[in-house]
Amino acid sequence: MTGTTITAQPGTPFITVTREFAAPRAAVFHAHTEPDLVKQWLGPRGLEMEILEFDARSGGGYHYVHRDDRGEYRFRGVFHRVDDGERIIQTFEYEGAPGDVCLETMTFTDLGAGRTRLEGHSVFPSVEARDAAVESGMEHGIVEGYERLDEVLGKEG
Amino acid sequence: MTGTTITAQPGTPFITVTREFAAPRAAVFHAHTEPDLVKQWLGPRGLEMEILEFDARSGGGYHYVHRDDRGEYRFRGVFHRVDDGERIIQTFEYEGAPGDVCLETMTFTDLGAGRTRLEGHSVFPSVEARDAAVESGMEHGIVEGYERLDEVLGKEG
Repeated sequence: MTGTTITAQPGTPFITVTREFAAPRAAVFHAHTEPDLVKQWLGPRGLEMEILEFDARSGGGYHYVHRDDRGEYRFRGVFHRVDDGERIIQTFEYEGAPGDVCLETMTFTDLGAGRTRLEGHSVFPSVEARDAAVESGMEHGIVEGYERLDEVLGKEG
Repeated sequence: MTGTTITAQPGTPFITVTREFAAPRAAVFHAHTEPDLVKQWLGPRGLEMEILEFDARSGGGYHYVHRDDRGEYRFRGVFHRVDDGERIIQTFEYEGAPGDVCLETMTFTDLGAGRTRLEGHSVFPSVEARDAAVESGMEHGIVEGYERLDEVLGKEG
């Protein structure tokens, strides 16, 4: 298995995340759009996730809460475009940093032999907002979330 | 009257637009959320605008067509957040450049004495996409659109 590559070049408002999964593209995509599956992997271990809304279609929206011993973290956004099996473009806002909305594009590529590459590209409204997101510890949440996704997909990472 | 200031620093994916209007903040905001008004000013002169959808509330969407002698130009997006009278955060996509979605934040500031400052901040998924938007002639459309908005607001610019 390859690991998760997270790139955040200094002085830019971008974060790029690349990860391969040992599962077919349709399965990886489905795990991003079906709330009962999303709930099983999104975010680091040890958090409980409550989904208040998750309507993964063009024009739909989402709203969820992560809870741990220290408190709760609310996230919301809208799906600008959901191209079945191929791409999701959505907004993303952590309610603890209101107004620092970012735009995320997730692209699912079929690598053949039942493997899929997922590339996420996030752009923030400023370099400072991007830096704050990086410093918040999001890297840990992404890496561990994708390990959990490996498990949901039925493959050990 | 002040003119429109458009800033697009080289090597960044940002465009910032600042404009003052001789009208109260509520009126300037209303002209951005009421489709019958939007239709009267958005974009350069000489285009006909057909609005297919315009639901300016958090989670809503929009879809419109500009037409001139040379053809038609379709635009769509979703409203991530509409804070009444204060701020609009929305996605924006020109269907001629599919996938180059940008995120726009419009902030309305009450300057007192019946004047309003509008600041728009757009961020694109790449510097190249931002450059392509600048080169498309969007500057002309913004400047002339705001002159038309002056007229809609009942004040000559």
